[in-house]
Amino acid sequence: MNGKKVAVILSGCGVYDGADVNEVVLTLLALESSQVTYQCFAPDMLHHHIINHITGEVSHQERNVLVEAARMVRGEIKAVAECHSREFSAVIVLGGAGVAINLSDFAFKGPDCDIHSETLEVLNSFKDENKPAGYLSIAPVLAPLIYGEGVELTIGNDRDTIEILESMGAVHKRTSYDETVVDVKNSLVTTPAYMVATSLIEAKAGIDKLVKEVLSMSMSPRSYFLHAVG
Amino acid sequence: MNGKKVAVILSGCGVYDGADVNEVVLTLLALESSQVTYQCFAPDMLHHHIINHITGEVSHQERNVLVEAARMVRGEIKAVAECHSREFSAVIVLGGAGVAINLSDFAFKGPDCDIHSETLEVLNSFKDENKPAGYLSIAPVLAPLIYGEGVELTIGNDRDTIEILESMGAVHKRTSYDETVVDVKNSLVTTPAYMVATSLIEAKAGIDKLVKEVLSMSMSPRSYFLHAVG
Repeated sequence: MNGKKVAVILSGCGVYDGADVNEVVLTLLALESSQVTYQCFAPDMLHHHIINHITGEVSHQERNVLVEAARMVRGEIKAVAECHSREFSAVIVLGGAGVAINLSDFAFKGPDCDIHSETLEVLNSFKDENKPAGYLSIAPVLAPLIYGEGVELTIGNDRDTIEILESMGAVHKRTSYDETVVDVKNSLVTTPAYMVATSLIEAKAGIDKLVKEVLSMSMSPRSYFLHAVG
Repeated sequence: MNGKKVAVILSGCGVYDGADVNEVVLTLLALESSQVTYQCFAPDMLHHHIINHITGEVSHQERNVLVEAARMVRGEIKAVAECHSREFSAVIVLGGAGVAINLSDFAFKGPDCDIHSETLEVLNSFKDENKPAGYLSIAPVLAPLIYGEGVELTIGNDRDTIEILESMGAVHKRTSYDETVVDVKNSLVTTPAYMVATSLIEAKAGIDKLVKEVLSMSMSPRSYFLHAVG
């Protein structure tokens, strides 16, 4: 282990109403492969709704986002309210529809969305400490509300989502599954993952790249300096 | 793609009451990396029970094993009753407690357990066609009921489970996370995965090996010959 520790934010368990399982496992694998430790977090709240992942049918069975997210990480998870940015080198926000229905209401309100308050506080604190962040897949829809006007990011190539993000002030760059966008000013790395990828191999290419870039920024002299004087 | 297609059997979503999410994603990644296509299956039945993966608390909220397993594979899954061995080169059975509470009642009856009838039929048909099989993690507890007396396998090094398996007629070999046991006579490969592994990296070592060995057996002249005359 190299002493770095990364906070990973999840939004349930399952691509259509929670965190994208493939993206989660691939990201944790990339972190382990980089000799980095991590702690997963999710909001302690009810799922907005539950989707049958075969039929697409919506139900309102009560499931807690934190408890469901625990299924992917053998119970090793904490409530997002317990995430203190000072304890971590960087944060990574995973994709999946849970970003847009649990971590925020982007799926319902688009550009007028709000972020779940505890999650917002955590993501803002990483920004305030100038610590690097990686937002995967659909998670970059949260970035304009954290980093403000001019934030550079990608969610791949979906025209409708791009238009919404641009209306929120983002500078969007189209990318393929194996590409990232690095916003140096904000220490923010984004990659489309399953917004574009059609296989684990494709998703792994972009996720590995994002993790590498986030970790390399977490050791930059600039972060070190700001941390030392913060 | 190399023309091979593997059937993958899941038992829910979540290590403590279903399929082990990490093992599932790592196995599918290994199959993709080997240029092999796959189809996932799970029994269309209710979960025996549901475990809160943080507290360990048991509940009886109704959840369907097939529907929950779909969360790990973006809905690309079929009922196990639709799995026809003639369409596949090999079968892989994933681990997780779901093997012992959904696919069978091993968790409750130990050596006197039964396998869920549709799953039993599918696993027997792969055996009858002499097609290779890979059983990961806790899944080898099913093997004595399929392959009978003398089947060679591993579930790692857990003494209690080993004793039960031996009482069921298995020849058990202790292994580490990066080892497999190959029963040549039965075309069966086993590896302990998270019965021993403590990280994704460790689990990946044994899973990659198992997948490679299962695939290499699926091309052996012996299988080919038996298939040709079957």
